[in-house]
Amino acid sequence: MALKLRIMDTIRAESKLFGFQTIGTPALEYADTLLGIGEETDKQSYRFQDHGGRDVGLRFDLTVPFARFVAEHQNELLFPFKKLQMGEVWRGENTQKGRYREFAQCDLDIIGTDHELADSEILALFARILTKLHFGSFTMAVGSRPVLTGMVRKILGIQGDGSEGKISTALISIDKLAKIGEERVISLLVEQTGSSPQACARLIAILSAKDPSGATDLEPIKLLFADDPKLTESLTSLQKIVDGARMGAFGDQQHRDQSQRPTLKIDLSVARGLGYYTGVVFETTIDGLPGFGSVCSGGRYDDLVRRFTDRELPGVGGSIGLDRLVAALEELGLGSVATNPPVFIALVSPAANLYGLSVASHIRAAGFTCEVGFAPKLGAQLKHANRLGVRWAVILGEDEAASATLTLKDLSTGEQWLGISQDQLMTRLCVKSVDP
Amino acid sequence: MALKLRIMDTIRAESKLFGFQTIGTPALEYADTLLGIGEETDKQSYRFQDHGGRDVGLRFDLTVPFARFVAEHQNELLFPFKKLQMGEVWRGENTQKGRYREFAQCDLDIIGTDHELADSEILALFARILTKLHFGSFTMAVGSRPVLTGMVRKILGIQGDGSEGKISTALISIDKLAKIGEERVISLLVEQTGSSPQACARLIAILSAKDPSGATDLEPIKLLFADDPKLTESLTSLQKIVDGARMGAFGDQQHRDQSQRPTLKIDLSVARGLGYYTGVVFETTIDGLPGFGSVCSGGRYDDLVRRFTDRELPGVGGSIGLDRLVAALEELGLGSVATNPPVFIALVSPAANLYGLSVASHIRAAGFTCEVGFAPKLGAQLKHANRLGVRWAVILGEDEAASATLTLKDLSTGEQWLGISQDQLMTRLCVKSVDP
Repeated sequence: MALKLRIMDTIRAESKLFGFQTIGTPALEYADTLLGIGEETDKQSYRFQDHGGRDVGLRFDLTVPFARFVAEHQNELLFPFKKLQMGEVWRGENTQKGRYREFAQCDLDIIGTDHELADSEILALFARILTKLHFGSFTMAVGSRPVLTGMVRKILGIQGDGSEGKISTALISIDKLAKIGEERVISLLVEQTGSSPQACARLIAILSAKDPSGATDLEPIKLLFADDPKLTESLTSLQKIVDGARMGAFGDQQHRDQSQRPTLKIDLSVARGLGYYTGVVFETTIDGLPGFGSVCSGGRYDDLVRRFTDRELPGVGGSIGLDRLVAALEELGLGSVATNPPVFIALVSPAANLYGLSVASHIRAAGFTCEVGFAPKLGAQLKHANRLGVRWAVILGEDEAASATLTLKDLSTGEQWLGISQDQLMTRLCVKSVDP
Repeated sequence: MALKLRIMDTIRAESKLFGFQTIGTPALEYADTLLGIGEETDKQSYRFQDHGGRDVGLRFDLTVPFARFVAEHQNELLFPFKKLQMGEVWRGENTQKGRYREFAQCDLDIIGTDHELADSEILALFARILTKLHFGSFTMAVGSRPVLTGMVRKILGIQGDGSEGKISTALISIDKLAKIGEERVISLLVEQTGSSPQACARLIAILSAKDPSGATDLEPIKLLFADDPKLTESLTSLQKIVDGARMGAFGDQQHRDQSQRPTLKIDLSVARGLGYYTGVVFETTIDGLPGFGSVCSGGRYDDLVRRFTDRELPGVGGSIGLDRLVAALEELGLGSVATNPPVFIALVSPAANLYGLSVASHIRAAGFTCEVGFAPKLGAQLKHANRLGVRWAVILGEDEAASATLTLKDLSTGEQWLGISQDQLMTRLCVKSVDP
């Protein structure tokens, strides 16, 4: 929980710098709102009737409640609206390591603009958040739905009736490239689209060709699109978005240690399964956890809110799986949250209790965590302090209360000082807490 | 949401200073865990069968999940265990102003000790939190179950078979004193206990007698308990707990403005309806909102965890209704969260986009919120900036990008400066943001 709170605090702080506002929506929504998005989500939704006989369900993501929220509050919201939403979602599926039936998501969206600067800002914000979480290096791979769709159409020669369905299926297969490999994706494409094995192999070869930085080699695609101004524009736009994202995330400064610099690159094989993306799509992997999968993904969508309102509200956004991030940080051995150990007040006489509480209030007022011992004997209190990882124990009895002084003990060395004043204690804490 | 987050941040920060740890438990629990606490809660629980045919329900408070959590993790937890838990709870009842079917609670507990210093610390922590929320003055009224029970027994002469039930009923009636008045409580007591009207009137007279500070006048009660060392001890303990709480919350310093000092007082008429309290009980009202009711209440309990384990784990704790606090702050006109308005970057040429994103990243790195304009025209961007409450707009076009300078506009005065460097902007922001 400490780790999850640290992640959530980091997300809030960075989002605030980008001008995002936090919203909250209830866990329970009307079943009508939740259902009908897809067969899988319908099946996985927790649904029941409430005490008033209404069909309700627990949200299975934050996207649908957000769309409902935007439609409902469209006259009060100032567009483009930038929102942060964090909360639990529920899915009735089998659990796996790091995947639970109840888990926390974090969504960041800019809605009400189709400007490519918004795409850059979303990518930059996610990159900032992941940088601030100190995972080590990570890779954000950014693709483009129109570019990829254009390539699939041109190279596989898909046209006419039923081409939309074929292309969707092809995208889902291309999305599996990293998981199942080129050979199997090519067979799937041949089977699904009816295109020639040569054409399918060529598509996959172009998608897999990388320049020295690991990004998709764009030269063959530029050639392919040379006679198509619209697709050329989509490709140029993608490049601008990624250049802007890099600038927004890291400024114009060279990272001192190139190996620690997160990678933000164009990878046209990023397809993303979900149907609603219409522009950039991205996913993010942690370089130190190659098999872990994406920790943060999203893209541009044009009609997410259309289910609830006629108003056109294009947007761009993405999700971080908070519980997955916790699992990732733990797997990297970065799971412990450093906190200053508390100061412990051991009370050896009931006559010192009031004095002890007053000392505790001063220590806390100075910003230090302070624990008060509740056991009757000093030994038991110091044992508890040791278990809490305490270094500084303040021991107070009748004498200390009478003279308004403290006995201070360094539990790490056993050293002890008598007759310390409260001011001397504060000085000691301020100096010692910044010790290496 | 901004207000709720500010309250939650304050609670976390203060609790940390007292050595509390945050825990989280799922929203869904097995029905077996949730049910059987009381008829009312059983009736109000949202229950259903999950996809595996298990009977589950949404938690109706944080207390039952906490008890289950403690029993389950008793071998890993270090007792006394101090915990903070914040989260939503669900109750299928009729909604009222500030009362929803889904609402957020905050529970603070110290479990695994019966030491009266723990009672003082819990009261002090709640008083610190409410002080830090800047409600103006508030009153924490602290009673004692054993003292009140002793008074009811002695004055009403309740003894023998069935006395427990009579006393519980009497406590529930006494709890209504502030709401329904002395006369009606006396009639209820006569009816419920079969005691004489004179005895019931005497009990209520003693409970209602206050000293000049507004606290219960303890002198008649000391006389009443003179021949009973156990009850005398309970009364002395209550005094020590409240004295300790005051010291823990406010230290030994005199408040400069006595009228702003929160009141922490003994009020023996505080009974609290819930059956499980066994020691101190408290509730808190905001002086500026006399009809609002208690915003924070709790007490000592001895066998909350007994349902789930044989181990004896006495504790003390309380709850803050987060959504009720939000409603209270709004009613007091304290609902707006002050934030520094963002710096706005207006981009007047696509050639300045990358430069603009780099400037944005520098402004954010300095800790200032920065918004980037997404509209194509300057006018639309500045209109949006005005709506956001922006004072400083940075306007960037081709010239600025080429010379790496900024045009800065003060939207509050219309003044504009050309050729500003990024360093000059930072200086301006740092100086102007602390302006009165």
